[in-house]
Amino acid sequence: MARKPKNRKSSQKSKPKQQPQRKQATAVPLPKRRDSVEICNVTPQVEGGRHPAYRVVGELLRVEADIFKDGHDVISAILGWYAVNDQKRQETPMQALDNDRWFAECRFEEIGAYRFEITAWMDEFLTWRHDFQRRVDGGQESLATETIEGVQLFEKNAARAEAADHKNDAAALRKAGNALAAATQGQVAALTHELETERLMALWTDRDLATVTAEGFPVLIERPAARFSAWYEFFPRSVLADGKTHGKFRDCLPRIEDARTMGFDVIYLPPIHPIGESHRKGRNNTVTCAPGDVGSPWAIGAKTGGHRSVEPQLGTIEDFEWLVKETKKRGMEIAIDFAINCSPDHPYVRDHPEWFFHRPDGTIKYAENPPKKYQDIYPLNFHCDDWQNLWSEMVSLVTFWVDRGVRIFRVDNPHTKPVAFWEYLIAEIRKSAPETLFLAEAFTRPRMMQALGKIGFSQSYTYFTWRETREELIEYATELTQGEMRDYYCANFWPNTPDILPHHLQHAPPAMFKIRATLAATLSTSWGIYSGYELCENQPLPGREEYLDSEKYQITERNWDKPGNIKAFIGRLNHIRREQPALQEYANLHFIEADNDRIIAYWKHSDDRQNIIVVVVNLDAHDTQESTIHLPLEEMGVDPHHGFAVEDLMFDEIYHWQGASNFVSLDPRSKPVHILKLLPS
Amino acid sequence: MARKPKNRKSSQKSKPKQQPQRKQATAVPLPKRRDSVEICNVTPQVEGGRHPAYRVVGELLRVEADIFKDGHDVISAILGWYAVNDQKRQETPMQALDNDRWFAECRFEEIGAYRFEITAWMDEFLTWRHDFQRRVDGGQESLATETIEGVQLFEKNAARAEAADHKNDAAALRKAGNALAAATQGQVAALTHELETERLMALWTDRDLATVTAEGFPVLIERPAARFSAWYEFFPRSVLADGKTHGKFRDCLPRIEDARTMGFDVIYLPPIHPIGESHRKGRNNTVTCAPGDVGSPWAIGAKTGGHRSVEPQLGTIEDFEWLVKETKKRGMEIAIDFAINCSPDHPYVRDHPEWFFHRPDGTIKYAENPPKKYQDIYPLNFHCDDWQNLWSEMVSLVTFWVDRGVRIFRVDNPHTKPVAFWEYLIAEIRKSAPETLFLAEAFTRPRMMQALGKIGFSQSYTYFTWRETREELIEYATELTQGEMRDYYCANFWPNTPDILPHHLQHAPPAMFKIRATLAATLSTSWGIYSGYELCENQPLPGREEYLDSEKYQITERNWDKPGNIKAFIGRLNHIRREQPALQEYANLHFIEADNDRIIAYWKHSDDRQNIIVVVVNLDAHDTQESTIHLPLEEMGVDPHHGFAVEDLMFDEIYHWQGASNFVSLDPRSKPVHILKLLPS
Repeated sequence: MARKPKNRKSSQKSKPKQQPQRKQATAVPLPKRRDSVEICNVTPQVEGGRHPAYRVVGELLRVEADIFKDGHDVISAILGWYAVNDQKRQETPMQALDNDRWFAECRFEEIGAYRFEITAWMDEFLTWRHDFQRRVDGGQESLATETIEGVQLFEKNAARAEAADHKNDAAALRKAGNALAAATQGQVAALTHELETERLMALWTDRDLATVTAEGFPVLIERPAARFSAWYEFFPRSVLADGKTHGKFRDCLPRIEDARTMGFDVIYLPPIHPIGESHRKGRNNTVTCAPGDVGSPWAIGAKTGGHRSVEPQLGTIEDFEWLVKETKKRGMEIAIDFAINCSPDHPYVRDHPEWFFHRPDGTIKYAENPPKKYQDIYPLNFHCDDWQNLWSEMVSLVTFWVDRGVRIFRVDNPHTKPVAFWEYLIAEIRKSAPETLFLAEAFTRPRMMQALGKIGFSQSYTYFTWRETREELIEYATELTQGEMRDYYCANFWPNTPDILPHHLQHAPPAMFKIRATLAATLSTSWGIYSGYELCENQPLPGREEYLDSEKYQITERNWDKPGNIKAFIGRLNHIRREQPALQEYANLHFIEADNDRIIAYWKHSDDRQNIIVVVVNLDAHDTQESTIHLPLEEMGVDPHHGFAVEDLMFDEIYHWQGASNFVSLDPRSKPVHILKLLPS
Repeated sequence: MARKPKNRKSSQKSKPKQQPQRKQATAVPLPKRRDSVEICNVTPQVEGGRHPAYRVVGELLRVEADIFKDGHDVISAILGWYAVNDQKRQETPMQALDNDRWFAECRFEEIGAYRFEITAWMDEFLTWRHDFQRRVDGGQESLATETIEGVQLFEKNAARAEAADHKNDAAALRKAGNALAAATQGQVAALTHELETERLMALWTDRDLATVTAEGFPVLIERPAARFSAWYEFFPRSVLADGKTHGKFRDCLPRIEDARTMGFDVIYLPPIHPIGESHRKGRNNTVTCAPGDVGSPWAIGAKTGGHRSVEPQLGTIEDFEWLVKETKKRGMEIAIDFAINCSPDHPYVRDHPEWFFHRPDGTIKYAENPPKKYQDIYPLNFHCDDWQNLWSEMVSLVTFWVDRGVRIFRVDNPHTKPVAFWEYLIAEIRKSAPETLFLAEAFTRPRMMQALGKIGFSQSYTYFTWRETREELIEYATELTQGEMRDYYCANFWPNTPDILPHHLQHAPPAMFKIRATLAATLSTSWGIYSGYELCENQPLPGREEYLDSEKYQITERNWDKPGNIKAFIGRLNHIRREQPALQEYANLHFIEADNDRIIAYWKHSDDRQNIIVVVVNLDAHDTQESTIHLPLEEMGVDPHHGFAVEDLMFDEIYHWQGASNFVSLDPRSKPVHILKLLPS
């Protein structure tokens, strides 16, 4: 841990009088005078401070560090933090835990970039007081010398207060010093433990002699929706649901109202841009396209425009802006898809052929993953000679939609573009619109997913979609929320997407849809569904994890109020999430032992521990499962010797439990889950 | 991971043609062109590179990192390293493990400060070759375009070789390119996998487009004795062993010969300086000193001198230098004690009273740990106003003894002086005598012990002395050798010291002395005993962990060949350590399952895995213990379906074992341990 003076502006007060002989040749320069407190292993730190730790407005940041020095002196330490653009500093004392570990907590009230730092010093006053007490306890008879030393400390701090023109403090310190000088041995303890005396001695201690962590550690504060959000994805062109009439932005309100009733707050639309015609894919991703086939919205760009245009069949940009506003009026917001795919018809192909990959004969390459060919997509070359204009253009694309009111972007396949590009783009956008959020659709290897979180994505898709057994779920949710990933990666749990109908949902009963929704909505703080989930759509393309007659390639026919739907269940789920602070905190997940491994149980608490939620889920969608679950009552703050009550918020029932071990029985047909709130005793 | 160009001296070759519009205001500047490989989680790193990882000459350094990029390109990565004072760079290719983790290994041939760095890039040639093969495998008929692309890559690299005036390489690459141009599809794989072609394409690839870890990560290479050493401590004044005649340096050779026979290579002498007379402690640490009492060597300084002098009763500085040379002739070396304690009679008290702590009346303070008083010791104030001269003086003290041939210092209580002071002192000494080693006698809290290792101490005392049960030993040895401490902390295991006769040795039989010696000598690579251990001295001051009639305060009477001594056992132990490379490696310790928890078993291997040693110890010094132990044969490279032989190097016996589970029986009276060498089958 390198050091710097605490006061970033002041020059060093007391110049060293004389350099020791060998100083000039020293690789390890003589450290600052009296700087003898060590600070190390500071958490949170993401890649040694290269990237920020992420938190949201109002969320607790707990900072810990190893703080120690030679000898037996008493140390004082404070956590300080400041906005990078402001430097107005706040601070709070740190407290010692075990084994030289210290901690402090703080919260941030505004979006933005902050840094925190730790300052620690040998506290002369506390050291003196501690030493004095040990002498008293050890039966030392005369403490005259030690008393004089104490009085001198008061005078030193008083002089410092005076020099800073705080005459009242100086007077108070001198008065306390005089009282100490006149005190009997028995009075000293009370005198030197007076709160005001302690405060003033801490305030006027000489912090220029303190160790301060160099540079500070970065924290990026986002708005709460970065952490807590419920997403609903639908294809605007299918909202009329007759399987043939192309829906328009102006037709979307009923769908948004329905999502609102279900408690969602983010409406995510697949790409809204003109869809390419060349090599357009047909229904079920066939290579030949029949007349009237609408194509995949991810093949972006046509004669009518590229990423700055909307598909004419959806309406106009004004219609889109109207939809953004109508959604906002309803307390929700629109997220759009930022998919950097160009169809052969995209204007870039004509205007910027230099941005694409080329064959030796000069023609532009379509996407390939040999032996697979994607003739309807031309990938951009992020390292082409004109890369700077290309990157800049991408920023201006996002800015275009920010200017039209969009503040959430779901980014398609970010892992196929350079990480450095995303770091650049997100930082650029945050400069003028710091409240903008990005969700990474990166279904790829773990290190890349983590890297995207570190460099700025607010949320990420996850492997949740494929985690089925209790063991898998516990391992994965623990890795996400209890390890260092919690500092830079916020998981958004999706039970399905237009690309993925996982095996466990195929031909599955509604109970499985309720089970996976409950897991998604309560294991993480952000979750989402792709529409049709609430209708329990469960028909796969045979042998695949894709939907049959996928909406990606056609206008889908549906009954939005199909009998057997689970809209009310989902609405209740989202309602509970909004009411219970415990479900809005990300890193507070604790699993509960259950004897039956088809039952998964866990609990979450609000950061003040006043709100405690226990979730119990039957992972078996077909048969009733029963189990005893073993609650860690002490950690939950429950007296193990008295009964207590829990309220099932999903099914409006109250259970009276006694002791740690309690029996649950979950029939998937009627009650596949418990979401229990601990009632005050 | 920040980036810098690979070649530290060259300026950037291809200047960006044009800055994108937003560049000027960018907090995250546009990264270097094509720099799209991410490198993170590099190990080893000590505090994010603030401190070096420590290795010794010839020892393997294994570097690992997460290396990945967007998309499906093939990555190449190399580990490079260079001496800080030299910059001549060596490098070796890295290899991919699982999950984007890569590794490479290197060794260092000389003492000194090094840095290592990782360079990784999208390998155009390997990417092209991989892509080509996938197309072949996928049945693509015409590969004419792809072949042209390959030929172009050969030409690009040939041009680069030519520009660097490597005409032969350029010609070879062009020839290979021409061969490729003329090749049939079936010939391409063989052509492009030719070793010389691979080598040249890797050599002349464009590394200016690579990601390089910024700054590099520091490594400090020490001499082998930093890692592998066997210490023998004795008090020169007691060598005559009659309990009254003060031994001299010139009397020490028999003791050193004896230590040599026992296989020790470091002779550690407690402080050799004049001992204070004021408040000198009497026998058994009593406050009053009888006439003729010799006092504690740790109360340094008298009328005859301070830390630059030797106690006159031991002889002269010339005598000491003679002893250093005689010891060296015998293939061993002298370590002295650097104890920054001043007796009231130390010359500093007269010449530099400003270096001590003072009472308000101006008198100098003696050491206290209230209510305990140590009137025979004046502590130095490392933060006094004249601290720079004090620190400088300490460096010159050590230099004084370095100039007299000492290259190992055992540092007394380093944890009571500032960590920053030690960092400064050790760095200063290493400038002119980089082979100098420091052993930290820091019996204190873990974070401080770790900090001293990080800032430069080569070795440290440990808690081994108090770890008794199998569980305690496994936990502690694992923490030391298998966690991140292995990179900066080398444990020196001492079963006893002049300060500590642990409970398990008190009144204990010789078997316990053999057991603890075996554990110390084989769990770690450095170990030591304080003389008398080989004689199984086991009498404590009643109720304390101290020796009765401690040698710290008197001249001890002994029979150096006392019947029942374990000198032969210790000699064998050290001999085995020298013969078996597996026992000279620190971080290769693996525990073996044993059914009886009084039996501890572990194995170690040389880094080439040719030498495998299994140690089995009966922790019970009184009764025979038997157990089945379960060897991880596959990891050991033993065919589990065939029998194999192990040789007990301590007791010259050969056992024929079959399969993983084998029976051991250890009678503490005859055979308390096995040290087994796996014999080649």
